[in-house]
This record gives sequence, C-alpha cells and structure tokens, in this order.
Amino acid sequence: MTTSRDDAEALDRDDPLRSFRDRFEIPDGLIYLDGNSLGALPRKTPERVAEVVREEWGKDLIAGWNTHDWISAPQRAGAKIARLIGAKSHEVIGADSVSVNIFKLAAAALKMRPGRRVIVSEKGNFPTDLYMLQGLAEFAGAELRAVERGEVVQALDEDVALLLLTHAHYKTGELYDMDGVTEAAHASGALTLWDLSHSTGALEVDLNGARADFAVGCGYKYLNGGPGAPAFLYAAERHHNEFSQPLSGWMGHKRPFEFIDDYEPGAGMDRALAGTPPILAFTALEAGLETFDGVEMHQLRTKSRQLGDLFLTRVKERCAGHGLKLACPEDSNARGSQVSLAHEDGYAVVQALIERGVVGDFRSPDILRFGFAPLYLRYVDVYDAVEHLAEVLETGDWREERFQTRAAVT
Amino acid sequence: MTTSRDDAEALDRDDPLRSFRDRFEIPDGLIYLDGNSLGALPRKTPERVAEVVREEWGKDLIAGWNTHDWISAPQRAGAKIARLIGAKSHEVIGADSVSVNIFKLAAAALKMRPGRRVIVSEKGNFPTDLYMLQGLAEFAGAELRAVERGEVVQALDEDVALLLLTHAHYKTGELYDMDGVTEAAHASGALTLWDLSHSTGALEVDLNGARADFAVGCGYKYLNGGPGAPAFLYAAERHHNEFSQPLSGWMGHKRPFEFIDDYEPGAGMDRALAGTPPILAFTALEAGLETFDGVEMHQLRTKSRQLGDLFLTRVKERCAGHGLKLACPEDSNARGSQVSLAHEDGYAVVQALIERGVVGDFRSPDILRFGFAPLYLRYVDVYDAVEHLAEVLETGDWREERFQTRAAVT
Repeated sequence: MTTSRDDAEALDRDDPLRSFRDRFEIPDGLIYLDGNSLGALPRKTPERVAEVVREEWGKDLIAGWNTHDWISAPQRAGAKIARLIGAKSHEVIGADSVSVNIFKLAAAALKMRPGRRVIVSEKGNFPTDLYMLQGLAEFAGAELRAVERGEVVQALDEDVALLLLTHAHYKTGELYDMDGVTEAAHASGALTLWDLSHSTGALEVDLNGARADFAVGCGYKYLNGGPGAPAFLYAAERHHNEFSQPLSGWMGHKRPFEFIDDYEPGAGMDRALAGTPPILAFTALEAGLETFDGVEMHQLRTKSRQLGDLFLTRVKERCAGHGLKLACPEDSNARGSQVSLAHEDGYAVVQALIERGVVGDFRSPDILRFGFAPLYLRYVDVYDAVEHLAEVLETGDWREERFQTRAAVT
Repeated sequence: MTTSRDDAEALDRDDPLRSFRDRFEIPDGLIYLDGNSLGALPRKTPERVAEVVREEWGKDLIAGWNTHDWISAPQRAGAKIARLIGAKSHEVIGADSVSVNIFKLAAAALKMRPGRRVIVSEKGNFPTDLYMLQGLAEFAGAELRAVERGEVVQALDEDVALLLLTHAHYKTGELYDMDGVTEAAHASGALTLWDLSHSTGALEVDLNGARADFAVGCGYKYLNGGPGAPAFLYAAERHHNEFSQPLSGWMGHKRPFEFIDDYEPGAGMDRALAGTPPILAFTALEAGLETFDGVEMHQLRTKSRQLGDLFLTRVKERCAGHGLKLACPEDSNARGSQVSLAHEDGYAVVQALIERGVVGDFRSPDILRFGFAPLYLRYVDVYDAVEHLAEVLETGDWREERFQTRAAVT
C-alpha cells in the first residue's frame, strides 16, 4: 500500500508547528524546497525594515545608534541564535559573512595552538570553507589538509591546530557526529570549528553539550534573514579570554568611541567584530529570528526528519526506473533537513521542476537538492513535489531546450 | 560688515545643486551637519528597499539572484562609485566594511612587496585603520609604523611595503596631497592605500590621476547608503593580475557556482570579494548612489568649500570670546567637507546644539565636528547653525546637567 495524499494531509493536521507557516509570505502555488539556500520572507519583515528605514534612519539619523540601540544589533542577533544551537547567549554574535568569520576563528585557533600549523577539513566541503582556509594557510604559513570524509579523524595528529567541518553537508546532507568528532579532535590536541550553515534553524544542535570550541553559521538559510544576511560566530566561553582574531576592527574594541590609537579587545564575542554593523541587514535578520519564537527544537527536528522521510518514501513509490540515485543518507538520524538525489541530467530536471513551481536546487555535477524548512513547509507540499518530479521524469519534459541553459547563479 | 542671512539665501538661490535637496527626506527644522557620519535618507530608498524585500525576495525567493541580478550588486555599486573617485568602473567594487577591506588590501600589498615588512600610517588616523593594521601586522609578522602627520614621507624607507593614509582626516578634516604623497611613496618603492571614507561623495578625488594603488571607502557617510552600508575597494588596473588577498571566499572565485575545491581568483576586483553580498544593504547603497546622478564633482566640491567657509566666517563674526579654537585648516583647499572646532566642554556644547536641532558630532577629547554634505545642505542651514552655536555659548546652556552624560555611541 503506497502513501496517499490523505496521509500527508493527516500529518499536516497533527503538526504542532502547523501555525508557524502563517509567519511567512509564501507565494500561492509555490512549493519551496530551497529554504536551505534562501529562507522565505517572514510576514513581519517588510514592515520592520520599512520602519527602520523611514522612521529610525530617516527621522533620527545618526541618533539611531543610541536611540534605537542599533549598536547592539550583533549581540541581540547572537543571543537569539544561541538558543537554537545550544550555546549561551553571550557566546554568539552576528557579524560579517560565514566566509569572513571562518577566517577570524581559524586564525584564532592557529594562534591558540602554537607549533601546530595544520588545519584539517574535508574534500568536497562547502567551497568557501576550503577557499578561506586556503587563503589563510597561504597567508599564515599554515597548511590545509583536506581529506576524504571517512579519513577526517585519522588525519588528526600532533601538527593539527584545528578541524573545520560542516555539520550537515551542503550537498549530501550527511551529518557528522558532533560529539564524537569533537572529542576525537580534543584528544589529538586540536580545536574544532563547526560550520552550522545547513544546521542552524532546522536541526537540534548542542554546541555546549559537544564541548565545541568554535562555530560559524549562516543568517539567510533556515534563519530567514534575507539574501546575504549577516552570519554569526560562536566561541565557547572557556576561550573568551584567550581568543583573539586578526580582523581587529573598531567594533571589536573595548572602548570604540574613545578613538584611541591602540587596539584593546572587547569582552568575549565583542572582539570578533570588525567594522560597523549593517543595520538594515540586521533588522531583517532579527525579524527572521523572531519566526522561531516559541519553537522547541525537538519539534523542529522531528518534523524535519519526517518531511525528508516522506519525500524519500514517495520517490521510491513513484520515481523508480528513471535513473535517480539516492545521494544522501537514507536514515534521517544521519541526514540534515534535506534530501539529495543524483541524476545525470540533474540540472535540467531541476529547471523543469522550477517551471512547475517546485523550487529545489542543483549542485554540480549531478545533484538535485531539496531542502525542508520545517517552520513553513507542509507535508502536502512534499507529497505534491514528488508527484511533479515523477511527472517530469515520466514525460521527459526536462529534455526541452529551455531547461538546458545554465543561469549565472545555480 | 558682517555676513547676513540674506547673503546665505542669495547663495542658495544661485546654487547649481539646489534641487538635489529634494532627493532626500530631511526632517523639518533639522539642521543636519553629520552627513559625514551617516548620510540622510534618500527619498527613493524606502520604496526601493520595500520592493526588494516584498517583491523580489518575497515572491521570487532564490531566483532573485538571477532574475534581479542580485549577484552583480557589488560590481554595480562599484561602477557608480568609480565615477566619484576618478577610477575606471571595473577598478571599484562594493564589499564588506572599510575595516575588512583594509585588511584585504594591506595584506595584498605585503605580498606584492616581498622583503618589505613595514606599513606606515599616521598616529591619530581613524582608529579602525590602525586597529586593522595592528591585527594584520601581528598576524603576518609585519610592523605598523605609525608616525606623526608631518613625518609620514620621511618614514618611507626601503622596508616599507605600504603607506595607508586617510585622505581627509576624520577629526580635523585636513587633506593630504594625494598626488605628492603617492609619488613619494612610489619613489621609495612602497604602495599606497588611501582611505576615502571622508572624501568620497564630497570632494573631487582622482585616484587614477594620482596613480594611487589601492583605496577603500565608506558607503554610509556622504554616499547615503544607510547605517552600516557596504564599503568599497579600489585597486588600480595595473595591479589586477598581480594582486591577491587572503579573504578568498567563494564570491571572489573565478567560477563560484561550479563548487570546486580549489580557489582560483576571479578577474580584477572580483577577487576582492569574500562572502555572499548583503542584498538589502546593497539596495540601499545603490539608491544612495543614485542621488549623485547628474552631479558634477567640481560643483560638489565648490559648494563643499563654500559651506565650510561660510561656517568659519560666521564663527569668527559671532562666537569670539567663548573659548572656541580652530581645529581644522582655515584654507578650504586643505580641508575636507567639514569644519572642526575645539572647546574644552565640546561634548556638552554638541549635546546642547543637538537639542536645538543642530546635529554635529563630538570627537574625543574636545572636538566639535560639523560636516557639510553638499547634496542636501543649504547655506542658510550653515548660517542658522552658527547662530545656534553662538546662542548656546552666550547663554551657557551647555552647562546644564542633561548635556553632560555620555551616550554609548558618540
């Protein structure tokens, strides 16, 4: 007996997060399986951004830094994110991009492990993670040791200062055992830096529980902060006095408005800041974070797993014989909030789906990636998405010329 | 015979930039002399930002990167800025903050001058410039040599890789001779990095004419891009193949969406990018830059000088005997678009002026700073501002208790 649309509707009726969809503007008819690339627009964001632009900036101008406490936006965002990732509120701060934040924390780790000059990461990790480490390594006379996924723990030796891994792999969704890997890194004397870009806001993450040293993550995916939203950084409290980072700009200074010549690092995460925070972007990020108010993370994770399981079940039931291969863990315990499939014409298949209003994305060379944002996705969306996928494959629609041309951004 | 308000009104009537004020939302009754800290809100910005939030992000979601060409925001902003600073459109790109961009370009300069490990800058330069160089120097095993303003050229020797100076000093407004200093730096074998934060959008700057190597500048001052707007970087075309910078994130990659493991720098200024561009912030920056459409820089500069001269003339005529000292060049050729005065109770005087609707700012330890944004400031504003200043000093209003308490951001 196969799964029916009624089954999916029943799951929606019983969904404890059902009402959260109303916190978002989702275009009618759109099945959006790309909240892991860019989160949907929260309903309150347009008004909140407009208010900051027109009332705060427009009317109060420079006074806004004090009157509206713009200056604390990085700390406010950090405290809201902390709850989602098992951190204390003062261990997280919003700033810059994931890329820039990786540089800061990887540089901090090299300094905290003098004599160790190797950073271990995974081949096929999200590219910017590797690129930033390459830039850092060349600049700092360090070495990036990128190894196959299965060889990460073995690669930890007495030369390794830092292990940087992405908790949920961007392409396959495969999860690392954060506790076990962190413990192995510590046993070798290395620090850990977890990239939570594909975890935060969809999975249960417990940085404190895992004794993670550092982390970074993305504001524009599951956190719904808008395109290019500020990212965040985490450093465990036990490192707060010891850690320093080279992008030591004025916002990280202990007393930035005394305008003195010598840098003195601010307390805790403040020293992770560099330049002036982008207030319009932080406004949207804070509004995005408010969509999580009242959510319990275990509910989010349970739904995330069930959405993925429903998708895979329906793919097996409906899409056999069309050349799809599983490209993610089948066990939802080992999988982030996404499902990945491989198809040799994956790019065209994704484009044909998009034309039907089912938005996933393609990741080179052959991956169809479908993300499940548990706050606003319904089980019927997942059900219907697979129906469309089956139809695209059955009809061969994807072979049409217009689906073959690559866009600038994929 | 002293200057009258009629004289100021006459200057406004003859002002070729008079109509540009209509491009801004200036609150009624406000005399805003702080466009050099945070530019005023352009009239078109609220609608433009709202459209990007509600229509582009809200309705097109991830497709916005292609459909609305979000991905080219850094290049578009750069091209618009280039015209204002005497650069070719492909020599400038919008990105990150001034702080982070200083790190990128100073690191690039160290690499281009192997064997030279000294960066020269000025004591009392804008703090973040010094702080970033301190962070870089410690990290890279280089040395920051910060010297008195008058000793900058003498400090250039065969160990110096880079000279970083702020074209218009943030506190005194004093200008460097960009041509002469750049020539002296080149003669010593050093590269130059000009911080144009207090120049761009108010002064005539000719980076190409001066053969400047690198520059950075701010998006939220005279460019009217909103609080914490993206900053920009410039590298002379002749360095485009040679320059590389360590914050080598995916947006600087030659083919970012091929998701390959090895970094390959993009063409020209693209390689100065690190992470994903913040689209809401860039939208406001682009709207801010459009306020310059049709402006000729020599008109802007002429008005900038005349506003400052009028202010100083009126201070002499109206404020003598109250302990004010000139803290900026008297000659408008040597002065940026600001006037600075020193007063031992400067903080309280500035607060008393703010209460009267005359917004300047205070810079530690004793500087009253008044900035003149030529696009939206009127000569009568300047006239009236000095009247208020005279009244505050004559009445001793500033002695009142409520003007003594320092705010978080000054």
